[in-house]
Amino acid sequence: MFRVYLAGPDVFLSNAVELGRLKRARCLEHGIEGLFPLESDAGVAAEPGAIFRANCALMERADAGLLNLTPFRGPSADAGTCLELGYLYRAGKPLFGYANADLCYRERVETQAGPLREGRFGPIDSAGHVVEDFGLFDNLMLVQALEASGGGLCQRIGTQGADPLAALEAFDASLAALAAYCSHMGRDGS
Amino acid sequence: MFRVYLAGPDVFLSNAVELGRLKRARCLEHGIEGLFPLESDAGVAAEPGAIFRANCALMERADAGLLNLTPFRGPSADAGTCLELGYLYRAGKPLFGYANADLCYRERVETQAGPLREGRFGPIDSAGHVVEDFGLFDNLMLVQALEASGGGLCQRIGTQGADPLAALEAFDASLAALAAYCSHMGRDGS
Repeated sequence: MFRVYLAGPDVFLSNAVELGRLKRARCLEHGIEGLFPLESDAGVAAEPGAIFRANCALMERADAGLLNLTPFRGPSADAGTCLELGYLYRAGKPLFGYANADLCYRERVETQAGPLREGRFGPIDSAGHVVEDFGLFDNLMLVQALEASGGGLCQRIGTQGADPLAALEAFDASLAALAAYCSHMGRDGS
Repeated sequence: MFRVYLAGPDVFLSNAVELGRLKRARCLEHGIEGLFPLESDAGVAAEPGAIFRANCALMERADAGLLNLTPFRGPSADAGTCLELGYLYRAGKPLFGYANADLCYRERVETQAGPLREGRFGPIDSAGHVVEDFGLFDNLMLVQALEASGGGLCQRIGTQGADPLAALEAFDASLAALAAYCSHMGRDGS
């Protein structure tokens, strides 16, 4: 069965295990096996080295990545998920990302950190740092890695009132894109 | 000559090009060639796809990575730098990270987002999300990738009053660790 690594800050939700099971069930409806970090041999209580090795092993087993890139504790995606995006890209896996957020990166920085001023190399935040202004959802490396991998980004607003990290509308759309990819490649990714 | 990819949000500083030249000069003092993103063929004004491809090409050329993991627009390292950390790790390069910041991740989240409460799976922030509490500098995937690569992290406070992103004390210490690594491996990394 085609296997997808389910990356994201979902592991930091209080209902992470349940959400992982729900995502895996949705994958199975498409004939895809979902690999969710918290369900690896290294559990929630494991030490950092064991969790790192277990996550890398899961990524190696996966045929593709499906990543929750919803902004986490700042204007960008979760740091660990960004690392996994780079890892999976270098490993040659097709990558499908989604985000429950509607603004582009520049707008998000402005919303969180206040008005920007125009500088020589683009807009500048209050700390004096240039803000990427390509109209992209996040840092260009993230968005381009998704595209260059053969996958792509699905950005839309999740359920009103729910935790944006946990909403599944964009996940479902992203999973459907992955399923179409699998179907095009002959279901087993070969 | 041994080549090191100089990753980091340095590219978002107003004096990015000068800082890149300074870092490259410091590398040369150790007999190491520094590869700095803004000095690739794709310049500041290039389009996102060209910048992405140029950065990937530079990472492929590099024998090692030296990454500025100073927190950027939130409690974690810059999103693009995290992606590059994962990319370089999967490519098998030894990775040396540094950060101009003195707190651990949990303390930094608390400082930026307010008091945490204790939950079933560890401390929880005001958004209801678990905060990693391993006493590590950042998300465990980042710290463990550095260690597992054969490199490591150098965390210390930069020059008082200067922009923490631009301070070079921790960079110098990290570069010295890389130079020792090169020396141990026979200078050319073979």
